[in-house]
Amino acid sequence: MLRLQTPALLVDGPALESNLAAMAAARPGPRLRPHVKAHKCTDLARLQDRAGHHNFTCATLLEMERMAGAGLGADLLLANEVVDASRLTPLIAAGARVTVAVDSMATIEAAAAAGVTEVLIDVDVGLPRCGCAPADAGPLADAARARGLWVRGVMGYEGHAVGVEDREDRTRQVDESMVTLREAHGEVGGEVISAGGTGSYDINRVATEIQAGSYALMDTAYDRLDLPFAPALTVLATVISVSRAGWAVADCGLKALGMDHGNPSLAGGGLVWFCSDEHMTFSMPEGEPVPVVGQQIEVIPAHVDPTVAYHEVLHVVDGAHQEVLDVWPIDMRGW
Amino acid sequence: MLRLQTPALLVDGPALESNLAAMAAARPGPRLRPHVKAHKCTDLARLQDRAGHHNFTCATLLEMERMAGAGLGADLLLANEVVDASRLTPLIAAGARVTVAVDSMATIEAAAAAGVTEVLIDVDVGLPRCGCAPADAGPLADAARARGLWVRGVMGYEGHAVGVEDREDRTRQVDESMVTLREAHGEVGGEVISAGGTGSYDINRVATEIQAGSYALMDTAYDRLDLPFAPALTVLATVISVSRAGWAVADCGLKALGMDHGNPSLAGGGLVWFCSDEHMTFSMPEGEPVPVVGQQIEVIPAHVDPTVAYHEVLHVVDGAHQEVLDVWPIDMRGW
Repeated sequence: MLRLQTPALLVDGPALESNLAAMAAARPGPRLRPHVKAHKCTDLARLQDRAGHHNFTCATLLEMERMAGAGLGADLLLANEVVDASRLTPLIAAGARVTVAVDSMATIEAAAAAGVTEVLIDVDVGLPRCGCAPADAGPLADAARARGLWVRGVMGYEGHAVGVEDREDRTRQVDESMVTLREAHGEVGGEVISAGGTGSYDINRVATEIQAGSYALMDTAYDRLDLPFAPALTVLATVISVSRAGWAVADCGLKALGMDHGNPSLAGGGLVWFCSDEHMTFSMPEGEPVPVVGQQIEVIPAHVDPTVAYHEVLHVVDGAHQEVLDVWPIDMRGW
Repeated sequence: MLRLQTPALLVDGPALESNLAAMAAARPGPRLRPHVKAHKCTDLARLQDRAGHHNFTCATLLEMERMAGAGLGADLLLANEVVDASRLTPLIAAGARVTVAVDSMATIEAAAAAGVTEVLIDVDVGLPRCGCAPADAGPLADAARARGLWVRGVMGYEGHAVGVEDREDRTRQVDESMVTLREAHGEVGGEVISAGGTGSYDINRVATEIQAGSYALMDTAYDRLDLPFAPALTVLATVISVSRAGWAVADCGLKALGMDHGNPSLAGGGLVWFCSDEHMTFSMPEGEPVPVVGQQIEVIPAHVDPTVAYHEVLHVVDGAHQEVLDVWPIDMRGW
């Protein structure tokens, strides 16, 4: 019987392997650029590399540093804007291939000043976040080239569309975004059209590479979509108190769980009442066995990415969750 | 002008000092047992110690270890149930005074097995979380004594009442809870009645010591109460993208902010649209200056405790937020 100090992150080894295999079959090699922000773990990225994907997407400078440091620097994209890229200079000097997203003169200047030589023009395709107006993509590409940068192509994340539950609706919205991105690409040039995520990995017909990250561990939000990936991440917690009035308390709380998608759920059934800093109060349905103090239970976080970022290690477990097969440091936490 | 790598946690030094002084005046010395879970920082705890509070409250075994390791082990209460207390054994051997909360035979057994000699009986006073039924407090105290433990008294957290905005309502609810706790204390005995939090520090008339933590850095939720403590914590972020369509993006997101109380707010005014993993999309009111790429802004997290737990250090800044006075490791993160 598995018994760990809690709270502890568990990754179901077979589910992870199956997710990686399903994606590698659908999007082999460079047609996928796995996003490491979802797991922040170079050991897990190494499995993605072994599955044939040698090009990676990062969200932070620290992720870029750690991936290059782990020998996974064949083709690293910082898919995010930075106004000071100087921490990338040593990576390039050490032989990593580094590309950064730019969407303004300031970010072009930051890339050039750091000795970055390759960029993607980041285009707003409908999600109100980073990315230039489509009409600005061509002029920005010209400006980047004038500054001596090699423009590899465009990037545009249809984040507003990837979670749409109905497949037809989702496809229509992804298509609309990709019309925009393709037009921008016509102005920009280059061989790369980088876009997409787990929810659009198979319906985005324009992207030359998909930046999916969630598929490896999977989010409960994506569960409602028709995707061939299984939830692989849980938080192991210990029941520390049981009330005669009908509730129990486990030792995982707001500092062990990403809460922006709401309360976690219970892998074994039951109802989560609320979470406090280090507690989760819950109850079991009538007729179900009452938990006992000391029992360990598994909790499914509502959002994987900000959950992982609270923990130091991932415990890879067998399919029966009886044995720890490996312990992987979450070595890309922080910034 | 302050300029840091972002996201970065800032603590307003004068506001912190003022909060600590106000509490030390109202609840001097052992009448306050500061809860370190709110800041997870031994450097900050040392200031609380210098303000006259030498007894501390912890939520996790790691907080107990780090406090003792920092020489702040005069009287440490683990105000939480544990089913394996063995990590406390070395602290006691090294001379720390360790008390743990117990609310069941299993937790009494865990304390005794670890060589813990002092406990508080944790009593449910209305918040559905840990704590035994009031009627069980006396029998549990007897059981603890039979197991060779010294019962210092009772503990009961009126967490459902501390955030009630109306002071009269709040006082009434705190009073009700404390009637329960006093009755339980009558059955248990001992010199300690440990209870309360920032919202009840001055209205709880039963507790011999208050377990307040939030008062040091303060939460926006407590802002609506009539408390003499000022918000002292912000997240510094850098504007990385500005859209011509009216929004801007800063580099602090779900992994830099506790989100269970909702979106953060902007210290300089404006509207937060949403947060992504590493982004916050926001806009300024019409007529206000549009942010520029590279500008640094301050963001007020909606909930301090789970925000702090994402970061490695606190930057203590002067009142004008122009200069970093000190950098404190958040050395009690994790478990």
